[in-house]
Amino acid sequence: MKREIKKAEGKLGILLPGMGAVATTLIAGVLASRKGLSKPIGSLTQMGTIRLGKRTDKRNPLIKDFVSLANLDDVVFGGWDLFTDNAYETANKAGVLEKSDIEPLKDELIKIKPMTAVYDHKYLVNLTPNNIKEGPTKMDLAQQLMADIENFKKENNCSRIVVLWCASTEVYSAQTDVHATVESLEEGLRNNDPNISPSMIYAYAAVKLGYPYINGAPNLSCDVPAMVELSHRTNTPIMGKDFKSGQTLMKTILAPGLRARLIGLDGWFSTNILGNRDGEVLDDPGSFKSKEVSKSGVLHDILEPELFPELYGNTYHKIRIEYYPPRGDFKESWDCLDIFGWMNYKMQIKINFSCRDSILAAPLALDLALFIDLAKRADMRGVQEWLSFYCKSPQTAQGLPAQNDVFKQLEKLENTLRYLKGEDLITHLGLDYYENELFA
Amino acid sequence: MKREIKKAEGKLGILLPGMGAVATTLIAGVLASRKGLSKPIGSLTQMGTIRLGKRTDKRNPLIKDFVSLANLDDVVFGGWDLFTDNAYETANKAGVLEKSDIEPLKDELIKIKPMTAVYDHKYLVNLTPNNIKEGPTKMDLAQQLMADIENFKKENNCSRIVVLWCASTEVYSAQTDVHATVESLEEGLRNNDPNISPSMIYAYAAVKLGYPYINGAPNLSCDVPAMVELSHRTNTPIMGKDFKSGQTLMKTILAPGLRARLIGLDGWFSTNILGNRDGEVLDDPGSFKSKEVSKSGVLHDILEPELFPELYGNTYHKIRIEYYPPRGDFKESWDCLDIFGWMNYKMQIKINFSCRDSILAAPLALDLALFIDLAKRADMRGVQEWLSFYCKSPQTAQGLPAQNDVFKQLEKLENTLRYLKGEDLITHLGLDYYENELFA
Amino acid sequence: MKREIKKAEGKLGILLPGMGAVATTLIAGVLASRKGLSKPIGSLTQMGTIRLGKRTDKRNPLIKDFVSLANLDDVVFGGWDLFTDNAYETANKAGVLEKSDIEPLKDELIKIKPMTAVYDHKYLVNLTPNNIKEGPTKMDLAQQLMADIENFKKENNCSRIVVLWCASTEVYSAQTDVHATVESLEEGLRNNDPNISPSMIYAYAAVKLGYPYINGAPNLSCDVPAMVELSHRTNTPIMGKDFKSGQTLMKTILAPGLRARLIGLDGWFSTNILGNRDGEVLDDPGSFKSKEVSKSGVLHDILEPELFPELYGNTYHKIRIEYYPPRGDFKESWDCLDIFGWMNYKMQIKINFSCRDSILAAPLALDLALFIDLAKRADMRGVQEWLSFYCKSPQTAQGLPAQNDVFKQLEKLENTLRYLKGEDLITHLGLDYYENELFA
Amino acid sequence: MKREIKKAEGKLGILLPGMGAVATTLIAGVLASRKGLSKPIGSLTQMGTIRLGKRTDKRNPLIKDFVSLANLDDVVFGGWDLFTDNAYETANKAGVLEKSDIEPLKDELIKIKPMTAVYDHKYLVNLTPNNIKEGPTKMDLAQQLMADIENFKKENNCSRIVVLWCASTEVYSAQTDVHATVESLEEGLRNNDPNISPSMIYAYAAVKLGYPYINGAPNLSCDVPAMVELSHRTNTPIMGKDFKSGQTLMKTILAPGLRARLIGLDGWFSTNILGNRDGEVLDDPGSFKSKEVSKSGVLHDILEPELFPELYGNTYHKIRIEYYPPRGDFKESWDCLDIFGWMNYKMQIKINFSCRDSILAAPLALDLALFIDLAKRADMRGVQEWLSFYCKSPQTAQGLPAQNDVFKQLEKLENTLRYLKGEDLITHLGLDYYENELFA
Repeated sequence: MKREIKKAEGKLGILLPGMGAVATTLIAGVLASRKGLSKPIGSLTQMGTIRLGKRTDKRNPLIKDFVSLANLDDVVFGGWDLFTDNAYETANKAGVLEKSDIEPLKDELIKIKPMTAVYDHKYLVNLTPNNIKEGPTKMDLAQQLMADIENFKKENNCSRIVVLWCASTEVYSAQTDVHATVESLEEGLRNNDPNISPSMIYAYAAVKLGYPYINGAPNLSCDVPAMVELSHRTNTPIMGKDFKSGQTLMKTILAPGLRARLIGLDGWFSTNILGNRDGEVLDDPGSFKSKEVSKSGVLHDILEPELFPELYGNTYHKIRIEYYPPRGDFKESWDCLDIFGWMNYKMQIKINFSCRDSILAAPLALDLALFIDLAKRADMRGVQEWLSFYCKSPQTAQGLPAQNDVFKQLEKLENTLRYLKGEDLITHLGLDYYENELFA
Repeated sequence: MKREIKKAEGKLGILLPGMGAVATTLIAGVLASRKGLSKPIGSLTQMGTIRLGKRTDKRNPLIKDFVSLANLDDVVFGGWDLFTDNAYETANKAGVLEKSDIEPLKDELIKIKPMTAVYDHKYLVNLTPNNIKEGPTKMDLAQQLMADIENFKKENNCSRIVVLWCASTEVYSAQTDVHATVESLEEGLRNNDPNISPSMIYAYAAVKLGYPYINGAPNLSCDVPAMVELSHRTNTPIMGKDFKSGQTLMKTILAPGLRARLIGLDGWFSTNILGNRDGEVLDDPGSFKSKEVSKSGVLHDILEPELFPELYGNTYHKIRIEYYPPRGDFKESWDCLDIFGWMNYKMQIKINFSCRDSILAAPLALDLALFIDLAKRADMRGVQEWLSFYCKSPQTAQGLPAQNDVFKQLEKLENTLRYLKGEDLITHLGLDYYENELFA
Repeated sequence: MKREIKKAEGKLGILLPGMGAVATTLIAGVLASRKGLSKPIGSLTQMGTIRLGKRTDKRNPLIKDFVSLANLDDVVFGGWDLFTDNAYETANKAGVLEKSDIEPLKDELIKIKPMTAVYDHKYLVNLTPNNIKEGPTKMDLAQQLMADIENFKKENNCSRIVVLWCASTEVYSAQTDVHATVESLEEGLRNNDPNISPSMIYAYAAVKLGYPYINGAPNLSCDVPAMVELSHRTNTPIMGKDFKSGQTLMKTILAPGLRARLIGLDGWFSTNILGNRDGEVLDDPGSFKSKEVSKSGVLHDILEPELFPELYGNTYHKIRIEYYPPRGDFKESWDCLDIFGWMNYKMQIKINFSCRDSILAAPLALDLALFIDLAKRADMRGVQEWLSFYCKSPQTAQGLPAQNDVFKQLEKLENTLRYLKGEDLITHLGLDYYENELFA
Repeated sequence: MKREIKKAEGKLGILLPGMGAVATTLIAGVLASRKGLSKPIGSLTQMGTIRLGKRTDKRNPLIKDFVSLANLDDVVFGGWDLFTDNAYETANKAGVLEKSDIEPLKDELIKIKPMTAVYDHKYLVNLTPNNIKEGPTKMDLAQQLMADIENFKKENNCSRIVVLWCASTEVYSAQTDVHATVESLEEGLRNNDPNISPSMIYAYAAVKLGYPYINGAPNLSCDVPAMVELSHRTNTPIMGKDFKSGQTLMKTILAPGLRARLIGLDGWFSTNILGNRDGEVLDDPGSFKSKEVSKSGVLHDILEPELFPELYGNTYHKIRIEYYPPRGDFKESWDCLDIFGWMNYKMQIKINFSCRDSILAAPLALDLALFIDLAKRADMRGVQEWLSFYCKSPQTAQGLPAQNDVFKQLEKLENTLRYLKGEDLITHLGLDYYENELFA
């Protein structure tokens, strides 16, 4: 049942639309890891192990020894941004990393300069860019991007490319007819259809060329039928959307716990304060709506109110994101859960998470890039649901409800790796430990 | 592979050593459910469903329709206590349930009177009991308990019995030679060995008669080789220990989340304030030690510091329980986690859980009683690790590390039920949803 | 220097525009206190003492023994509401008091029926009233109110009347020309000027008749030059505005603490979740603006950024109120303060206040009513700044900055009482305790 | 009434027994302020203003312009420590200040080397010192200290000296006969009475020489009759004890707020986690007891349970300090208050204060030193109760209850300064703003 996977040979180019706080934190961390200055903490591909066989077998290889992944030394970063700052300048402005962590990487960071980016004011209202592409049609912009990608690949001598959206959340938009088929989408690109956002142009450019594409924001991007169809035609893996980093990560850790114990939930109030560019962008109601939709969905498939109307049928779920400049990237969330148990008695849980947006997101971006490159080499195409683990709002096969429980997502990821390598899947049954003694 | 399980016919007697807050909350809730006054929220056996087959099959029967479990109408409660109060009096004194929830059950509660209990001041120092057994040896006390059990079974016309320890935490004691074999234990009972605590005498009485025994507190009780051996000889299922209800439940929900994401952990400080009898008992350092040992262990097997020394090798874990009378049963915990991520950047999580001890514990007690009765009818004997889901410090086969991750515990429980009924085990692989389209 | 104060003889009618949660909680508590069923906790007029003389004199009479206040037995409640429910019905619907606390008062509560109220959709958008006055002009409505008041006074045989606004927050409106003089206001009433809100009509009716008026909400109401002028003409004390109960109370307790220690403040984020009618009304942006303005102002005069630009010149202050139905009246606030100290090092304070809106407001309403009645009997007129202690946004003499520090407000209140009774004012100097020994 | 105060001319030597985290943070901050690298935030003597006259007068001079205080440029630091590290080494080890804040001060810090210290294992159990004085009697040690002080004064050309205890908390000890009179104390020093702790030897040395002494820890030190008597004989001001910095500061901010509003208090639970040397010392039960006694007392005089038995008669107050190494100096406190209001309804306040011990304490140490030097120049002697503002457990005249309310303490301090300079005391009465209009 084991599958043929091509070796990860040569260089892997990771191209990032959006070279802001997350992207530069990702790049800095990879550079620092290469130099032995820090550990790539939070990254399954770098530090994670995978249990094989029985609990008592004690077989726990590193994931990167179990499956063939691009080595960090073989990764090359590039990308596009609305501002001309190089990665060194951006890392300093972002306020994520200490100066003392950036300086040792200065020479390398300074060389990473963003290519001109695709911009549309309709999809991003609170910023004033200075580094954008011009072109008569969206198709023309897509072709410029394709040229950028191929140039980068050649110049950097890459054998493989992955494109990973790390830019701001776009203003909310719903799926329309233009997103239905490859043909309608290409027609729309040629006609400047207003429903095609910048992130979709990047996705188109990548997938058209057969390069894996990942969407780290809640935009539609590759999550429309036309893009899925294109990914099948070009044998390209795609995945999204929205890095599951702070509050939503916590929610998909905690909600499965409530569900496991059938503890009822009257309400879940979530607020966030943050002061980085992400916060500034989300201060716009349209952008917030994209994020809100992405964040709101996670409770439903975890709690299954259809199965448990008495417990979860009336759950009031409210999410707020507040721009609060004193915090910069040091985001803080406060969650308040009104729960009830045995005989309807009420209880409360409050969670206060002081996190750092980009620090949590960076390893997810790295893992997604390396795993989707694996998928490409394993000849996997279309939606990679097994990477749901990293996404706030995982893309799935049409009509298939997403799995948001972070633990089921991890098991899905791990069992997928075991499956690809022909190992037994883990079920946690474990009756065999007692086999000679359990049954009378 | 499906197993033969005897039907749950006739009445099931649930006998409780310790008829305090947890026990009376359990009883009141079952009575109220029978009368349709409330739902048995938090109980998998009553409200839980189990997914069978694929996600899209939408087969989610109630667990109690999937396997044969004792019906709540067929359950009869009895027990022992150090105080003479009947269940109605105790429920009123315990301060858990509102008067308006107790009154409709008065007639039934008032009839449930505790039998005289086994007491040893060495193992319980902060209380002054008024309803205790006398006898020259511990074996003599065990025989009195066996007589109590058989009388109760006859008088109440029960076909099956389960014994479930709901009493206070005993003072800490470690395993000694007397606990090594059935023979040494019985010798110790006859010789009044000081290392045999009251809860162990209850466990012996139950298992000797072939009745399943569950330990809801952190005492040694049935967690010694002698008791495991006896349970095999008498074909009896046993399990423990310590109901996993409040803070530890939260810990085994959250720690797997950190581990899943490989987020490092510098320290975890946990404090609890509570003002009920449990708090009073735990104000004694010896009793607190039992609890501390039980609560401390959970992080190790979840975080696996051997595999991740950089992440979890120096985790400082400190637990405090503070007697704080203003709170009564309305316990509150505060947890403070010092975590670190990408490039060693530090973050914090704080959790404030305002819970109600007995409200959380009651459904666990019910499920454990009904599931261990199922095990007995399925001819399962010895340690029932598949019920770890309910325990702070799960008993396992000798030498086998416990599984404390609540999600793996639930999967173990569910897959065990699927296994017993011959259904496919769930692995969350899910590649088949994409089978015709996934691979190029 | 002692002033002549008329005795509090006869009955005092307290008339409440708005007989909702706060009003019925106030009434129920007064009735319960009369019957000895509970204590009027939180009320200075009922339980407060006042220190007289030196610390070592141990003279601490009850305030109500020190100055002549209406006795609770002499208080009669009445009022107006947009809904026809009597006080018993409203108390049950409000979800503030337990049924067991309301039942013993049923006979009295049921008799308190609201008179028809003045309503203007422009000022209150989220409710649909069923008990409103009709009239061609606002002056006509004012005259109906005056008739209501005089009828109530006669029927209940009252010697004195106080009118106290306990209704919802009105949509925000700023001061305009119509509010400039008594003449322009009366012209506006006759002409249905849209800038005259319902609460202003109540205020006009009361003050015109010479009855003290208090504004418990953040509306303009009596806080315009015309109303102040009228209060001087009719020798009437007035005061407002907005009961200082939950989060803002906490803010005016804590901010003086930061200011005392010159601890810098980068930001203060305040969010509230509540699910009562107040929450529903404040879900409307216009009503929220009234509240936001009222809540925002308190930091400025406490922190004095003009004096301390390095500490408070850039304080980012953000306030949110979120309608969250699971909570009902059991409001919860979360405050997050980003502070800095010595050498600019940053620290944080977080406060989580689980309070009950109406429980906190009721004693303030009682005190304000009894103290303003005292003011009337002491021949005091116009703005009663000494009652700032109770107000989120205290009314002051034109051009005089408000004092929001709750401790200075209390000292102002207490020293005013001492002044009225000719006692020494307290300065906390206290060098005299050491006089023979302090100086060399 | 204005007093004669000598000008602050020449250099002021501030001598610190205990040159650890607090002391080096104090010194570093003063050096940085002199160089214009940072502001002395949190210091009333440096940044504080004082209101003079009426609110509308807008007279708010800086305190240091209002009374004559030593200029920071004229301050010289020295001291004693149990370890030989110089101030630069200690600042780096203490983990309070960032390296980048210490480096610019290196040259000056490195020169500040501790003199050998007085040590007694009985009073400090968790440390192993390497820099201690030897001597046959405690009197001999006192004389060595006096020689140290006079040498320092001469070498540094100081006109005045202040001694300020910044060392660890000593093991708890109660007052005994040896502390009764100057004579018994001196006899005890000669006889090595075990009830004389190191901090008392420092206090004796300073006061005997007529130099002001301040006690920043909860030890007895100068808080015994013998020391008060000596301070009168030598015309020396003294004050203590225990810097009021983190959780207790918060408590004396919040408790006056509850008391102001007569909100009842069922319980107040306070826990602290900290990982610095202070935490290590307080892990010893004897040292913790000193701290516990100091921290526990503050609620009593603020809440006055004698006056309000229904509100504060049964308040359960529990304080815990937990050594938690992951935190270092970045202490965190969690407070949980169970309060009740109108009709006995219960509410809760929780406070989470992430503070930095030494950052909060340093400005208090500076202010105390400069103000007590002022007292000396104003010919004030004995206990300086007007400096209570800075103390967890303020020393007072015998039999006089302490004032712990931080706002009354501040008013006492400010009115004392106004009194010394012949300005009107502030009472917050403020009726005069309305004088022509208030009374009918």
